[in-house]
Amino acid sequence: MKVVKVPNSGQMRFKKNWKFCVGTGRLGLALQKEYLDHLKLVQEKIGFQYIRGHGLLSDDVGIYREVEINGEIRPFYNFTYIDRIFDSYLALNIRPFIELGFMPNALASGDQTVFYWKGNVTPPNDYNKWRDLIVAVVSHFVERYGVEEVRTWPFEVWNEPNLVNFWKDADKEEYFKLYEITARAVKSVDPYLQVGGPAICGGSDEWITDFLHFCAEREVPVDFVSRHAYTSKAPHKKTFEYYYQELEPPEDMLEQFKTVRALIRQSPFPHLPLHITEYNTSYSPINPIHDTALNAAYIARILSEGGEYVDSFSYWTFSDVFEEMDVPKALFHGGFGLVALHSIPKPTFHTFMFFNALGDEVLYRDAEMIVTRRKDGSIAAVIWNLVMEKGGGFTKEVQLVVPVPFSSIAFIKRQTVNEQYGNPWRVWKQMGRPRFPNRQAVETLRQVAQPHVMTEQRKATDGMIHLSIILTKNEVTLIEIEQVRDETSTYIGLDDSEMTSYSSSE
Amino acid sequence: MKVVKVPNSGQMRFKKNWKFCVGTGRLGLALQKEYLDHLKLVQEKIGFQYIRGHGLLSDDVGIYREVEINGEIRPFYNFTYIDRIFDSYLALNIRPFIELGFMPNALASGDQTVFYWKGNVTPPNDYNKWRDLIVAVVSHFVERYGVEEVRTWPFEVWNEPNLVNFWKDADKEEYFKLYEITARAVKSVDPYLQVGGPAICGGSDEWITDFLHFCAEREVPVDFVSRHAYTSKAPHKKTFEYYYQELEPPEDMLEQFKTVRALIRQSPFPHLPLHITEYNTSYSPINPIHDTALNAAYIARILSEGGEYVDSFSYWTFSDVFEEMDVPKALFHGGFGLVALHSIPKPTFHTFMFFNALGDEVLYRDAEMIVTRRKDGSIAAVIWNLVMEKGGGFTKEVQLVVPVPFSSIAFIKRQTVNEQYGNPWRVWKQMGRPRFPNRQAVETLRQVAQPHVMTEQRKATDGMIHLSIILTKNEVTLIEIEQVRDETSTYIGLDDSEMTSYSSSE
Amino acid sequence: MKVVKVPNSGQMRFKKNWKFCVGTGRLGLALQKEYLDHLKLVQEKIGFQYIRGHGLLSDDVGIYREVEINGEIRPFYNFTYIDRIFDSYLALNIRPFIELGFMPNALASGDQTVFYWKGNVTPPNDYNKWRDLIVAVVSHFVERYGVEEVRTWPFEVWNEPNLVNFWKDADKEEYFKLYEITARAVKSVDPYLQVGGPAICGGSDEWITDFLHFCAEREVPVDFVSRHAYTSKAPHKKTFEYYYQELEPPEDMLEQFKTVRALIRQSPFPHLPLHITEYNTSYSPINPIHDTALNAAYIARILSEGGEYVDSFSYWTFSDVFEEMDVPKALFHGGFGLVALHSIPKPTFHTFMFFNALGDEVLYRDAEMIVTRRKDGSIAAVIWNLVMEKGGGFTKEVQLVVPVPFSSIAFIKRQTVNEQYGNPWRVWKQMGRPRFPNRQAVETLRQVAQPHVMTEQRKATDGMIHLSIILTKNEVTLIEIEQVRDETSTYIGLDDSEMTSYSSSE
Amino acid sequence: MKVVKVPNSGQMRFKKNWKFCVGTGRLGLALQKEYLDHLKLVQEKIGFQYIRGHGLLSDDVGIYREVEINGEIRPFYNFTYIDRIFDSYLALNIRPFIELGFMPNALASGDQTVFYWKGNVTPPNDYNKWRDLIVAVVSHFVERYGVEEVRTWPFEVWNEPNLVNFWKDADKEEYFKLYEITARAVKSVDPYLQVGGPAICGGSDEWITDFLHFCAEREVPVDFVSRHAYTSKAPHKKTFEYYYQELEPPEDMLEQFKTVRALIRQSPFPHLPLHITEYNTSYSPINPIHDTALNAAYIARILSEGGEYVDSFSYWTFSDVFEEMDVPKALFHGGFGLVALHSIPKPTFHTFMFFNALGDEVLYRDAEMIVTRRKDGSIAAVIWNLVMEKGGGFTKEVQLVVPVPFSSIAFIKRQTVNEQYGNPWRVWKQMGRPRFPNRQAVETLRQVAQPHVMTEQRKATDGMIHLSIILTKNEVTLIEIEQVRDETSTYIGLDDSEMTSYSSSE
Repeated sequence: MKVVKVPNSGQMRFKKNWKFCVGTGRLGLALQKEYLDHLKLVQEKIGFQYIRGHGLLSDDVGIYREVEINGEIRPFYNFTYIDRIFDSYLALNIRPFIELGFMPNALASGDQTVFYWKGNVTPPNDYNKWRDLIVAVVSHFVERYGVEEVRTWPFEVWNEPNLVNFWKDADKEEYFKLYEITARAVKSVDPYLQVGGPAICGGSDEWITDFLHFCAEREVPVDFVSRHAYTSKAPHKKTFEYYYQELEPPEDMLEQFKTVRALIRQSPFPHLPLHITEYNTSYSPINPIHDTALNAAYIARILSEGGEYVDSFSYWTFSDVFEEMDVPKALFHGGFGLVALHSIPKPTFHTFMFFNALGDEVLYRDAEMIVTRRKDGSIAAVIWNLVMEKGGGFTKEVQLVVPVPFSSIAFIKRQTVNEQYGNPWRVWKQMGRPRFPNRQAVETLRQVAQPHVMTEQRKATDGMIHLSIILTKNEVTLIEIEQVRDETSTYIGLDDSEMTSYSSSE
Repeated sequence: MKVVKVPNSGQMRFKKNWKFCVGTGRLGLALQKEYLDHLKLVQEKIGFQYIRGHGLLSDDVGIYREVEINGEIRPFYNFTYIDRIFDSYLALNIRPFIELGFMPNALASGDQTVFYWKGNVTPPNDYNKWRDLIVAVVSHFVERYGVEEVRTWPFEVWNEPNLVNFWKDADKEEYFKLYEITARAVKSVDPYLQVGGPAICGGSDEWITDFLHFCAEREVPVDFVSRHAYTSKAPHKKTFEYYYQELEPPEDMLEQFKTVRALIRQSPFPHLPLHITEYNTSYSPINPIHDTALNAAYIARILSEGGEYVDSFSYWTFSDVFEEMDVPKALFHGGFGLVALHSIPKPTFHTFMFFNALGDEVLYRDAEMIVTRRKDGSIAAVIWNLVMEKGGGFTKEVQLVVPVPFSSIAFIKRQTVNEQYGNPWRVWKQMGRPRFPNRQAVETLRQVAQPHVMTEQRKATDGMIHLSIILTKNEVTLIEIEQVRDETSTYIGLDDSEMTSYSSSE
Repeated sequence: MKVVKVPNSGQMRFKKNWKFCVGTGRLGLALQKEYLDHLKLVQEKIGFQYIRGHGLLSDDVGIYREVEINGEIRPFYNFTYIDRIFDSYLALNIRPFIELGFMPNALASGDQTVFYWKGNVTPPNDYNKWRDLIVAVVSHFVERYGVEEVRTWPFEVWNEPNLVNFWKDADKEEYFKLYEITARAVKSVDPYLQVGGPAICGGSDEWITDFLHFCAEREVPVDFVSRHAYTSKAPHKKTFEYYYQELEPPEDMLEQFKTVRALIRQSPFPHLPLHITEYNTSYSPINPIHDTALNAAYIARILSEGGEYVDSFSYWTFSDVFEEMDVPKALFHGGFGLVALHSIPKPTFHTFMFFNALGDEVLYRDAEMIVTRRKDGSIAAVIWNLVMEKGGGFTKEVQLVVPVPFSSIAFIKRQTVNEQYGNPWRVWKQMGRPRFPNRQAVETLRQVAQPHVMTEQRKATDGMIHLSIILTKNEVTLIEIEQVRDETSTYIGLDDSEMTSYSSSE
Repeated sequence: MKVVKVPNSGQMRFKKNWKFCVGTGRLGLALQKEYLDHLKLVQEKIGFQYIRGHGLLSDDVGIYREVEINGEIRPFYNFTYIDRIFDSYLALNIRPFIELGFMPNALASGDQTVFYWKGNVTPPNDYNKWRDLIVAVVSHFVERYGVEEVRTWPFEVWNEPNLVNFWKDADKEEYFKLYEITARAVKSVDPYLQVGGPAICGGSDEWITDFLHFCAEREVPVDFVSRHAYTSKAPHKKTFEYYYQELEPPEDMLEQFKTVRALIRQSPFPHLPLHITEYNTSYSPINPIHDTALNAAYIARILSEGGEYVDSFSYWTFSDVFEEMDVPKALFHGGFGLVALHSIPKPTFHTFMFFNALGDEVLYRDAEMIVTRRKDGSIAAVIWNLVMEKGGGFTKEVQLVVPVPFSSIAFIKRQTVNEQYGNPWRVWKQMGRPRFPNRQAVETLRQVAQPHVMTEQRKATDGMIHLSIILTKNEVTLIEIEQVRDETSTYIGLDDSEMTSYSSSE
């Protein structure tokens, strides 16, 4: 049994970089009501600052068309849908972290696409037209939302050009060309707009170094570096509906963060911000791990420490309204979302909610817990018990000794998700895994998707609260401790034992 | 340990007379936003058909005034507020069960009042003016809402005239006079309107007999009989804030129902409907018993059987927005409400919700449970463990053998409130009984005010599901059993054991 | 000047068949928030019973996929999206009028498509798979919504198979084959489901006759006949953004209705219901006529008389959220919708609203007006002044003499849309035709999209109200007349002339 | 005809002091749903910063009670209702401007009351208890809302103590005593809280001088001076339902503002802020003038210039949910509200909305208009035609020559309320003045309560727009002028004359 004596003063501010940004399915989905319902829920309970997704320039959003008029091909820029989408975002108090891609079909040099929804991943057939498109799009944003607003929106060039799936031949030189033209186009609209790249996934970090040297040599604008991070191995089994993959431990992701940071430090731009514009356990939108309590416990460590190494890291994604591998084939289908279809929060949603309750001052942190103090003096701690082994057992007990600035009574509130509680996936399996559940089943799944709440009153001893916390397998728990301002004595003559069935001690 | 083998066919239809009506604080409170918020919650989750409260004719609703014009005193009828109130009710899909009272000050023959809000309880100073008022009010309702609608609204004359607090000197002859004039006035507007009385509380049932003989002898219209029922004894302790009273067991209330029914059967109107227009454990709006799990367990028996004896029984009241004993002095103050201030449901709210889930066909019923079948073949049962003794223990186990029309897998959902779960009063005490809690405390109390939910999958054996149910002290539990339409096999290649941490058996 | 003396009794019930159904863009759009916002508006103000659109079986709704498992191709039916769509419809109190089409790509025998969104219009590559698909889809609806509900949903087979754009080679024999297999498949699920066709557009009415003979000869189930009706001629000018077409007069559409009805009467099924499952002036979704006051005045005649000839006629469409000719390129773009983007009602929306105010009893009707009486005795009339000629002038005056069952004062309310009022298209042109208007412009356009309202008080003379109504070009006006229950005299001592600035006569 | 050539540069910033605060009926009404609905509407369309009303300490809000416990009388402070009220205010983005009064019955030295709702206006029976009450109340606010927040709330001591109706015997010495004790009590909680007085009405301005000298001499804290201003004369006719009063011209009110400002300048505290904590035409809540277009035109002048003389002026009141003269006896009853019952805006509501559209830079102002420029360069002007004489005519024409920074096309939007438009009172009279209108009448009244909107396109000539504006009797009009960014030419091939019925010039 572990005993942790929490120090009374924090040396550290808790960096809430995990809250900076969240991922989304293709932007065209943001027209949908269910998508917006989920985003509203996420913003109310968590409150991210930015949202990033693919497909801004893909044909379904409809921005780029060409028209032949009197024998001349002209571009036609259509902002009908993107205005509606960004209006919705801003109304929900979240800003776009813009990814410039994929290629409009009319501008594409080839017909290679990615995903069910067929994002074209080939270079432009005419870089001048591409430049004009970028200028037109960015100018429209500035005109509609004001330059002050748009200066707060990062512009990232393309997505994972280091993969052949996402960029034809993963051609690095071609990407650098694209980047340069795009970055200069963005800056031509307003020099204070922020532009960055190379938005690569893990496994090709030489791109980072090469990219920054390229920018330095050609004096290409670059305001931030972006990279993705996943910790799943190659799938060992694939079915029509699921990918099964083993996971590296969470440390692996933190190592990825550090590695890229080190590369930047050694680059010509050692102080550039580093944005992890995507991360999750598995990179597959049909890996059932995303629906589990394990995922919730796994992510906790990342939220706790990730901010030490990177300026932001953006969970991929907030919602199962997502179509990369076709329309979801069942309520639970291994989607990336914090929120499952029918507005059902998954366990990982609650990990984010729990971290959102933490204070600014870190009193204690290790690999399985973080203890903070909030401005009002109350204590908030998240503790987790990630278990990557199979089987039962693995219960863990932690003795926590927490300093409090009072010697009276505290109110302790504990919220928990684990294999048993806050786990709609488990109940859905009991229901026979209904693909398209009826209203009654949805209602039950929403009920069981809430954390288990326990409360108690406890007296401080010598300015310390002693807690013994037992965590079951893959549990994540939030503990909040605040002083009780006891008003009981103001009820003159109060005596619960005068009630039928009750005693004073209740 | 009790073993109940539930029969496969029901002889009885479950009479949902408990759902016919619910009580409310004075009608003037229905102008308030919080009142309407609570009523909306109650209607969404329970859905009563009627609502009954005092004060229709009291001065705050403002219907009756007198004005002197050119030396002549004229009545002025003002429907500004009552229209707003009834519009709100109908918009929430609930109709008024009208109580005609108390006396407008301008019509009163004395200055005796009841309650903090000073309802005048004296006879009219001029019965002609009273008759005119009744005709004006009822006519206005007919004009605004249509005669077909108003014919569905029962009109009850006065409230508890058998008590000196509610009717000057508890003068029976005077009440009969009031009744006769009022009933004839109502019928003069439309002969199909329903009118009844005598709205007495327990302890004076000779009024019932006398009242019906009076109506018979003088051919006074009477469409229903009304009476109240509480089971608390006289307070053994009173403080500034609380009444403490012992309770009779629930059987006592059922006996009251039966007794009145018997009196009616022996009367000149043996087939008249009987409406219990108020009931609860304690008749005091500041008895903390109303906030408890005990109350929830106590009421269960009444909901289960009451409909056998009376045509309706109306829980007094749906909300703690209530002012008879002054503005509530603390969040939990022993109010009658199903819903506490700040929209926090109390345990008894969930008893009603649980009964609302029951089917029409009663398969089994005894003093501590009711088992029903719903139209779709699923089973819904409510079981309770009322413990009026003090102290710990009292856990009870029931073995339930339930017939199901299938031999495959069932999904079992159990929802529970007891001393530990769904009990915000308990947590509020841990918080130090904050009278005026802040937003954060309210949020916690709402969280803990939900029932505990447990689910499992279980196989039927020989067409029977065997359940072992343990109930702690004052627990009320709803159990729902439905067939699983198992789709698991349609996920070709599915194998949870391919996931990190998980086994197939999960 | 025309004088109309309205008779006091109606011989006719006004058939509100115009309200039975309304058209929609492809069903996949029903996932969108703006679409649902518009539908909510339409349902609140008009309240159609059914909604019909293309694309139920197209790939974006995602119902049909094929998967290879162990070398075998299996169908996979995915109801994730269609459940969400139909749940939304029913929540808005509108039911699907189902069109079975187009062809899922995996089932298609060719790659011919229609529309920007590429609906495949080729016959199935395997009629057995098609039959299985129909059975699966209809069975799912029955399971989810109940057979009683689904029996109220008409099932129409395909869309405009008489056009080569919509059905490969407009092959009639192939369509009959499709119809037979589909109709039998629907009935195999439940014999009381309703199925019909041939859903043709105008110009090929021999299909009607042939279709009904085909059904008779082969004893193929058929519960209704469906046909479309437009009155625009071939475009005389097309641009990138607009079609310009001349219109036939409204009589032309009524003639189409009558013609088809006559064909049915002469067929083996003389009593079959006739549903006009699409109608409008122009069949082009980019004809600016749809945005105009002319369209509002044109449609009025159809709503007034169409119900005499057909069992329903379904305006194509309720909303400009529509994608047949690509994403809308400007706020006003000639879309079919009653509601323009950003929830701005068009003039034709108000024609529908006006007709919705009419009573059941027709007192008078001619080619430019309809006068009705409502149940409460009030009068409601719609009058229009359709002017298909260019230029100014064309003001028309009508003297209306209306019988009323009182000789006192009436309150007259008149609502109008015309070229000046309720015409956001006009104001949008003044704004410089902003394609993607900002919030402020949208706000102004919403303001000017309301009808002009005029009210007056008028005395009845000999049981008649005399009204002189002037209609400007393309005006549609609703006039409502009801008796004033004058309460003025109850304000004792009232005298407006005692007020600064005011006289008694105000 | 008047010609106004508006200068191109403003010397003045428009002081929006009219927006600082608005009045309300007694605070207890803020529990009501309709009250909050009206406040929501007002905040959405106008957006006041503060709200001030009577009755914080009156018994219906329930803050102060006394209880006898063991023979000792103790105070009991109950914040149940006031917390709910202030939570509602802050949620609607409006803060309390606190008026400390009236006297709780338990603290009162006499039984004199004011209003239907019986506010006690006598001094405390024990100034120590009063001080304790003030400290308790203010401390509670600080605890619940934070000291930073409460420092922004002005605390005003009592209401109109210079009137015998509002303060027993209008005893000035007693008021100063009350003020001193109260002000010191407020400051004892936090020295940065703001406190002021003497809250007098017009006609006794010697109180201002005396009050400030009193504060100076005794070093009593005073942070602002407050005063009320009405321009109605004594009623020349009163009925059961209405007061009829003549009005002084608007200049009279501005003079009142200046006079008090001058008195402060000559006082020992020459720089104190001056808050007009109530103003309106008539001080009677049953003067029909409040419902009229005249009132809208009258108030315009005050909003235009008042801010030059006083730091705030608070329109009395935002809503007809008000009870000083009993429950409103009819929909329109001469209430103070900007919003009538059933959420119907009155003409004066629109005067406020129009002023809310004005820019910060005043280009021109006279007694009947104000012309401003907004940050984006657009022009916004309000013009009014107040006519206090009776009878018809009085139409006024103004030629406005407005400088614009472009020589192209402008879009002109004009919104108007006058005797004909935006005047539900007029239509209600046509309806026969229904006291308690049904839903259909309410719907019509809401429709006609909107301003009339006119739009046009007009070309600038030499950087000037020439407008000819005709105002009818008691009209208030808002004119907005902005540059058209004409996109018409981007619609290649556009030609409206290709449409049936339309010409290019439309």
